[in-house]
Amino acid sequence: MKKVSVGVDIGGTNTAIGVVDELGHVLTKDSISTPSHGDINVYIDDLAAAINKLITNAKFMNEDIEIVGIGVGAPNGNYYSGTIEFAPNLSFKGVVPVVRLLRGHFPNIEALALTNDANAAAIGEMIYGGAKDMKNFVMYTLGTGVGSGVVVNGDLVYGHDGFAGECGHTTLVPNGRNCGCGAKGHLEAYCSAPGMKRTAFELLAKYNAVDSPLAKHSFNELTSKMIYDAAVAGDEVALEVFKITGHYLGQGIADTVHHLSPEAIFLFGGPLAAGDLILNPTKESIEEHLLPIFKNKIKLLPSQLSEGDAAIVGASALAWKELEK
Amino acid sequence: MKKVSVGVDIGGTNTAIGVVDELGHVLTKDSISTPSHGDINVYIDDLAAAINKLITNAKFMNEDIEIVGIGVGAPNGNYYSGTIEFAPNLSFKGVVPVVRLLRGHFPNIEALALTNDANAAAIGEMIYGGAKDMKNFVMYTLGTGVGSGVVVNGDLVYGHDGFAGECGHTTLVPNGRNCGCGAKGHLEAYCSAPGMKRTAFELLAKYNAVDSPLAKHSFNELTSKMIYDAAVAGDEVALEVFKITGHYLGQGIADTVHHLSPEAIFLFGGPLAAGDLILNPTKESIEEHLLPIFKNKIKLLPSQLSEGDAAIVGASALAWKELEK
Repeated sequence: MKKVSVGVDIGGTNTAIGVVDELGHVLTKDSISTPSHGDINVYIDDLAAAINKLITNAKFMNEDIEIVGIGVGAPNGNYYSGTIEFAPNLSFKGVVPVVRLLRGHFPNIEALALTNDANAAAIGEMIYGGAKDMKNFVMYTLGTGVGSGVVVNGDLVYGHDGFAGECGHTTLVPNGRNCGCGAKGHLEAYCSAPGMKRTAFELLAKYNAVDSPLAKHSFNELTSKMIYDAAVAGDEVALEVFKITGHYLGQGIADTVHHLSPEAIFLFGGPLAAGDLILNPTKESIEEHLLPIFKNKIKLLPSQLSEGDAAIVGASALAWKELEK
Repeated sequence: MKKVSVGVDIGGTNTAIGVVDELGHVLTKDSISTPSHGDINVYIDDLAAAINKLITNAKFMNEDIEIVGIGVGAPNGNYYSGTIEFAPNLSFKGVVPVVRLLRGHFPNIEALALTNDANAAAIGEMIYGGAKDMKNFVMYTLGTGVGSGVVVNGDLVYGHDGFAGECGHTTLVPNGRNCGCGAKGHLEAYCSAPGMKRTAFELLAKYNAVDSPLAKHSFNELTSKMIYDAAVAGDEVALEVFKITGHYLGQGIADTVHHLSPEAIFLFGGPLAAGDLILNPTKESIEEHLLPIFKNKIKLLPSQLSEGDAAIVGASALAWKELEK
């Protein structure tokens, strides 16, 4: 029998589901809508039905598979309690007991666990990706927000209450930019996709850069993809956005290194498509901020998870990790 | 038989040694000079002789004791390799194999290990102090420098190369004050004893505060004890030094909380004598910088290790921790 696990990624709009083998290959996948308004019990019924349908499909295509677990990634997912807690971008309010409700539908499955999406990505990197032989590393996920997952001695760090690994909320600049969380100067306000856009607008203002292609777009229109395209085309403003973003990111990563002395930092997300444009200034900034005992030791690596399936694959990895225990 | 362990604290000037029981009581202690120039083998011979003499004394006073281990705390101490590596304030240069050399003198002792002084303090808090029932906490030690020890799931975090827990080198202010390590804006440059003095001098300059008692001392003369005395006597400048120090410390601690989600942060060192003068602004600043999911959850506690013996007691705790393995 070929063992496979199911990965579920609960997002604000859609919930993606995939059946994943031990090498991290997605055998089959599907998605359902995460309701904008709706009863959590109805949603879990729908999710369980979709999972069962997908398992049936996977078994039809691969007769010799055995489902060993379900891993769920979700914003504000708490591993200890199996709950989603006060997730600002989900319609489910308060504390939602996802694992308990799913267990009702899958009483016999061996592993069933939930964590937040960035933690799931870190576990995915450890089980399937570039961190297979590493015991100490940290994953930063750069997107609409900045998430992270911390691995120490081969285990994900959840901390006292299950919410460890919020490195995106390191304070980089005292009294700096407003962060979505309500505080000021956090890394996420500089290194997320909206953070890069904010940097672009500061630079347009600073240089009065009427000739930059970025000057043609409103604040609401400008995307990080446009900044990327402009940088690749040689636009000075866009290139500086990447430099500054890397500089801020490196400052935050150096804080992480001082705390945890990891072997490597993995970066995941859209900006990594820019390769050295983001990696080089980040590396330089990490070194600038580090104690001598850490200098030139820490690997900065792009994630080896494929962007499209990473969320599903990461969530499925949580199930494998559970089986190790 | 009453089991006891030996704690050794290697400092720049003196090496303190103590025999400590399972409750953290120092039964007997002594110290030898850490040579300003000298052969490491001669020093280790002297240290081993002093340890043996102290054990003989302890056995004379308490006939029923059994020595189960030796724990060593030292700056830049590496737990994995048992070495002191490039410690700027010690006369031993390069990489010094302390555990290997000591093992030659104590071939039969069960536990023999070394770590840095702040890690030793964290283990001391866990074995004897306020963190006895905690699995996730972080210890900050405030002194000439700022050290820290990180505990996750009941174990000290050493990281990939043994140097984790350098939270004193979190960057608080981009391009801020010069830190002793060569970087800029690190926490240690603001929250150590010299950091408090630097803050005092900035405030004297800002307010032209000729009436402050702190205005009577040169930069080289002013001590953190003088700032403390002036604050207790109501001097506005000195009081503001504590406020600002707490504010900076809270910013750094919030970064730690976002990484690790600890149950508590322990503070150790001279400034804690000021009690609420330092604790209140620190607490306030932590909360200001935290994500909502962490707000009003994290305990900020003064260490329960007694200032005088903490280094010895912390080092001895390392031996107990080894025996658990």
